[in-house]
Amino acid sequence: MLPFSRVAIIGLGLIGSSIARAVKATMPTVRVTGHDGDAGVRDRARDLGFADDVTDTPGAAVIDADLVILCVPVGAMGAVAQSIAADLPPEAIVSDVGSSKSSVLAALTAALPDNAIIPAHPVAGTENSGPDAGFATLFNGRWCIVTPPEGADETAIARICEFWKRLGADVETMDAKHHDLVLAVTSHLPHLIAYTIVGTASDMEEVTQSEVIKFSAGGFRDFTRIAASDPTMWRDVFLSNKDAVLEMLQRFSEDLTALQRAIRWGDGDALFELFSRTRAIRRSIIEQGQDDSRPDFGREH
Amino acid sequence: MLPFSRVAIIGLGLIGSSIARAVKATMPTVRVTGHDGDAGVRDRARDLGFADDVTDTPGAAVIDADLVILCVPVGAMGAVAQSIAADLPPEAIVSDVGSSKSSVLAALTAALPDNAIIPAHPVAGTENSGPDAGFATLFNGRWCIVTPPEGADETAIARICEFWKRLGADVETMDAKHHDLVLAVTSHLPHLIAYTIVGTASDMEEVTQSEVIKFSAGGFRDFTRIAASDPTMWRDVFLSNKDAVLEMLQRFSEDLTALQRAIRWGDGDALFELFSRTRAIRRSIIEQGQDDSRPDFGREH
Repeated sequence: MLPFSRVAIIGLGLIGSSIARAVKATMPTVRVTGHDGDAGVRDRARDLGFADDVTDTPGAAVIDADLVILCVPVGAMGAVAQSIAADLPPEAIVSDVGSSKSSVLAALTAALPDNAIIPAHPVAGTENSGPDAGFATLFNGRWCIVTPPEGADETAIARICEFWKRLGADVETMDAKHHDLVLAVTSHLPHLIAYTIVGTASDMEEVTQSEVIKFSAGGFRDFTRIAASDPTMWRDVFLSNKDAVLEMLQRFSEDLTALQRAIRWGDGDALFELFSRTRAIRRSIIEQGQDDSRPDFGREH
Repeated sequence: MLPFSRVAIIGLGLIGSSIARAVKATMPTVRVTGHDGDAGVRDRARDLGFADDVTDTPGAAVIDADLVILCVPVGAMGAVAQSIAADLPPEAIVSDVGSSKSSVLAALTAALPDNAIIPAHPVAGTENSGPDAGFATLFNGRWCIVTPPEGADETAIARICEFWKRLGADVETMDAKHHDLVLAVTSHLPHLIAYTIVGTASDMEEVTQSEVIKFSAGGFRDFTRIAASDPTMWRDVFLSNKDAVLEMLQRFSEDLTALQRAIRWGDGDALFELFSRTRAIRRSIIEQGQDDSRPDFGREH
């Protein structure tokens, strides 16, 4: 039996439009309605046809839904939740796809006190944004973390988990606070570092930006991919998961300072020891199917 | 006319074995001899057959060469150069592929004062090491930076440039000092940051290493690729290009501190401004053919 039969998606960018496409591909009888705050995105979504109906208001999209998924930047979750409150059926389960969960849970609970709220975070994406960037297999073999609040209805949790499994994801549940700590390490800090280094490299005097671009295959280009991610989404992530991000950043800075000192004093053994240790992590990630096993991410040569 | 007819390669890892394979693919009449300090690598190189002859001593590999390329970690260049000095024909041009150039130029000049020395650095590679990791198309469309010392013979420079063009590379010449500054930004700093963050993530108490691996698709996995590069090679790079690396690291740390402050004080505009700016760099890198244009580096979904 299908976990839901009428899914409403608010926000039709990379993730929202990928969910719509994945639902169509894996559960073709489910009716998908969508809405986006941007009229241009709505028009484009209608042309692309990944939803059965794209509505002009958020309320019209959710009016008979049994699942509503908010796919907007985390800073917009509260306002978007308020905008559907009047039209939301009381039995509808509300979920989201935000990269930070404590703040989203608080915002959704405040705006929609009468509905079951089961936040989720599919750990998947590309550097591209917008309705054209989505595709049905985005969640295949990726993890989706479900973060139900304490005391949440077990059936509601099970239905959300089943929904994500049907889209191809592996599902794990944890509390929102732990999610925010885990993602601060595995996603937020990496993005912050990538944004920083791309900024640093583009602000040099002795080295031109054209040289940075030309010789980027030495390693720099790897960082530019995630530093090309959606600016609004990421601004909101850092502001909403501030404490965990600052804690991770502090640890990173300490480790970087230790390495800086090893370079300054010519301590080759300390460098070698770290550089050997980090290889093992890469190996595990590939063994567990979380990255492409081909060299260089499978880039063409 | 071919720039060289007898090429000797000392060091048969990823880069050395790729050069051998690329010479065979693009200049099949050129004789390639090779040597590696590791007997196991020599045996493997003989099995793979990418060189016409793999010799047991470095001297035997270079004895009638008109080009000798040292493909060993930059810290080993001086000793390897000394080991070929007695057998090196005086007319042979000596080059290398090291990622830092000032220190290598000094080491080679001291060890081989009578030969033309034209250092070079192909900005290409993968995270894999060893003779099995090499392939003939590694240098296709990548830049090779040639760093001739002041007063170097123009014909010798031209022959080295022509050699790399035949292997598929675009060639640029600059002095060694500028090379070391450019690569400190585009390659050495990115590797240092990647090694650091992978180390930081694997040393957490509240987040397990298994969680870091599981949820790495949120961004972290991108860093693990270059943090899986050869530890000896990279230890030597940081020690030999110390000043430029420390200078770049200082700039990076300042920029990171500014971002940290913006997060702490909730300055969303500062974050948004940087995150918008970094997108343009990615676009230029793709436009100039320095990265795969497919989303997510072309990873399979």
